[in-house]
Amino acid sequence: MPNAFTWQTLAGDAAAGPRAGRLSTPHGAVETPAFIPVGTRATVRGVLPETLRAVGVQIVLANTYHLMLRPGAEIVRDLGGLHAVMGWDGPILTDSGGYQVFSLANRRDVTDDGLTFRSHIDGAEVFLTPESATAVQNALGADVIMALDICPPYPCPREEVAEAVRRTLAWADRCRTVHERDDQVLWAIVQGGIEEDLRRRCAEELVAMDFPGYAVGGVSVGEGHENLCRVLDWTASLLPADKPRYLMGVGEPRDVIAAIERGVDLFDCVLPTRNGRNASAYTDQGMIRLRNEQFKSDARPIEPGCDCPTCVRFGRGTIRHFFQVGEMLGPILVSIHNLRFFTRLFGRLREAVRAGRFRSEAQAILDRYAGTD
Amino acid sequence: MPNAFTWQTLAGDAAAGPRAGRLSTPHGAVETPAFIPVGTRATVRGVLPETLRAVGVQIVLANTYHLMLRPGAEIVRDLGGLHAVMGWDGPILTDSGGYQVFSLANRRDVTDDGLTFRSHIDGAEVFLTPESATAVQNALGADVIMALDICPPYPCPREEVAEAVRRTLAWADRCRTVHERDDQVLWAIVQGGIEEDLRRRCAEELVAMDFPGYAVGGVSVGEGHENLCRVLDWTASLLPADKPRYLMGVGEPRDVIAAIERGVDLFDCVLPTRNGRNASAYTDQGMIRLRNEQFKSDARPIEPGCDCPTCVRFGRGTIRHFFQVGEMLGPILVSIHNLRFFTRLFGRLREAVRAGRFRSEAQAILDRYAGTD
Repeated sequence: MPNAFTWQTLAGDAAAGPRAGRLSTPHGAVETPAFIPVGTRATVRGVLPETLRAVGVQIVLANTYHLMLRPGAEIVRDLGGLHAVMGWDGPILTDSGGYQVFSLANRRDVTDDGLTFRSHIDGAEVFLTPESATAVQNALGADVIMALDICPPYPCPREEVAEAVRRTLAWADRCRTVHERDDQVLWAIVQGGIEEDLRRRCAEELVAMDFPGYAVGGVSVGEGHENLCRVLDWTASLLPADKPRYLMGVGEPRDVIAAIERGVDLFDCVLPTRNGRNASAYTDQGMIRLRNEQFKSDARPIEPGCDCPTCVRFGRGTIRHFFQVGEMLGPILVSIHNLRFFTRLFGRLREAVRAGRFRSEAQAILDRYAGTD
Repeated sequence: MPNAFTWQTLAGDAAAGPRAGRLSTPHGAVETPAFIPVGTRATVRGVLPETLRAVGVQIVLANTYHLMLRPGAEIVRDLGGLHAVMGWDGPILTDSGGYQVFSLANRRDVTDDGLTFRSHIDGAEVFLTPESATAVQNALGADVIMALDICPPYPCPREEVAEAVRRTLAWADRCRTVHERDDQVLWAIVQGGIEEDLRRRCAEELVAMDFPGYAVGGVSVGEGHENLCRVLDWTASLLPADKPRYLMGVGEPRDVIAAIERGVDLFDCVLPTRNGRNASAYTDQGMIRLRNEQFKSDARPIEPGCDCPTCVRFGRGTIRHFFQVGEMLGPILVSIHNLRFFTRLFGRLREAVRAGRFRSEAQAILDRYAGTD
């Protein structure tokens, strides 16, 4: 099949409002709006693939930066590619590595050619270009791969953001030129900080290059909810109605709702698993922290009525005990519950869009949910 | 039901040779010979209860010593008992705590009354008596609980072993007197080191007290395979043909086969999970160490043909990667495979006993299996 990738808008406002859609890939379809759990080093930490399926996960993300360093893209390819390595036969997305170079690596040096940095693991010098980032992602073999971008920090001087946009645009074009697998799609990332004209220019020029999907990047770097909404107001409506839109690194329920309202389809975020590993569990009433003494004799599940494998079998007091003694099952159980919280939240929002009642459902969720920050 | 516990010999030599049986408990039946994975702190480390079921685990063990210290027996009782805490609705066995006091605790002091020791966690002084060990196990709520015993080290002066036997006998009688739940059975433990007359005397006197099941303890402390066989030769045939026999802390395949040959039904051992956490995987040809460089591009499962959730989805190179980067999934995946190796090994041996071909099957396993020590 020359192209197993399709995007359909199933309901809602294809152009600029909440929409429900379906992204088809060679490894199956993703019903959107959808949440993408993060499996940085080819595993969603502590969670088996069958458990991901059981809690309704449709697609997972892995990090090019981490896998390029360990075990290396050639090893992943030799092992049968990322689907084989992750034990996951559903859709996979890899990011470009750009974000991690800026957030994790040492001694970065950026030129028009690419990024030179030192590995955060052993200090080894690595040179990453649009061409090599694409080649690495071709070797890893995810269904959706991302063009190498430059993610400026927040706050950031305007001239630096402008330079990042200039390079992000040039690099997206170079990635597109070398991308060679037709069983993968290459999406581009809109940068531009909180500068309206730069965001608009970046979106428009990437759209002119005709990528099959677009991400909004450079958010979740400290800009806050209001700025995120502004960035989406400037950007999302410029992205084609007939292509998927992906907001990178955003998962806080309030942000997700605001982004769906502005036409975003896909979201990845470490929050459910990172919070899970820290004993912080999502519930409809807000976050609970399971290390607290108050839970020591509490036999109730994290969220009464929840159908996840954690809540069906384990009480809060047990999970607290596992964290107190340092048992792996503590982080595992709360990660599983939090993933289910996210897939259920997205399921509710998806249903609401399909039924034409997104705003009332979103408001009901926000009224009940106390927030997590 | 006054007594949901029954023992049936289904095949083999009930008195002194290999036998297949069925132990029924209020939480279901255990087909024997059976392996009991160790869930020290109320969890088999990193493995969800549904995965234990999926790999054929029938019964699990938890440690009274650890649970008494954290979270405490009252907390476990308040949380609904050990079955609720472990999320496991099958049979559970708790040991008495005696072995751990000798292997883990500090500043032990033994009198006829009981054991005084300091917790290995915070140094708190704890006094454990036959009465309190039984009360703690009554509160924990396992199906099978064990009488408090004294486990001498190896080697050990004969007079110390004799004293341990004397106290173990007196304590078994006191445990029997105070044990109060008829939905639990209390089994006694035969001690006596490698002293034939002490082993025999301990077995005979415990049998005279008419416990519903018996364990052979004080092994796997460094005495070696030949001594283990001698201890079983002296002891097992003295234990009643119509009651279950449990060998504590033994799981090395060669030892298991020798013990089944001598009439043992149940075995607990940390080997599959402890080795799993260290990247050592059991195969029919012996142990493989998955951290080894040789596996880095090896896409084959740990054991080709194995039906476990690990081997069905993951290759050796992936598992090596998880260990190299410190991902939880490494220890989890090898623990799961090793548990399946053990349940399959026991299943083969059980079938062989039922079919009257135990010795040939055991020889076939030993011929193929290179050993792990």
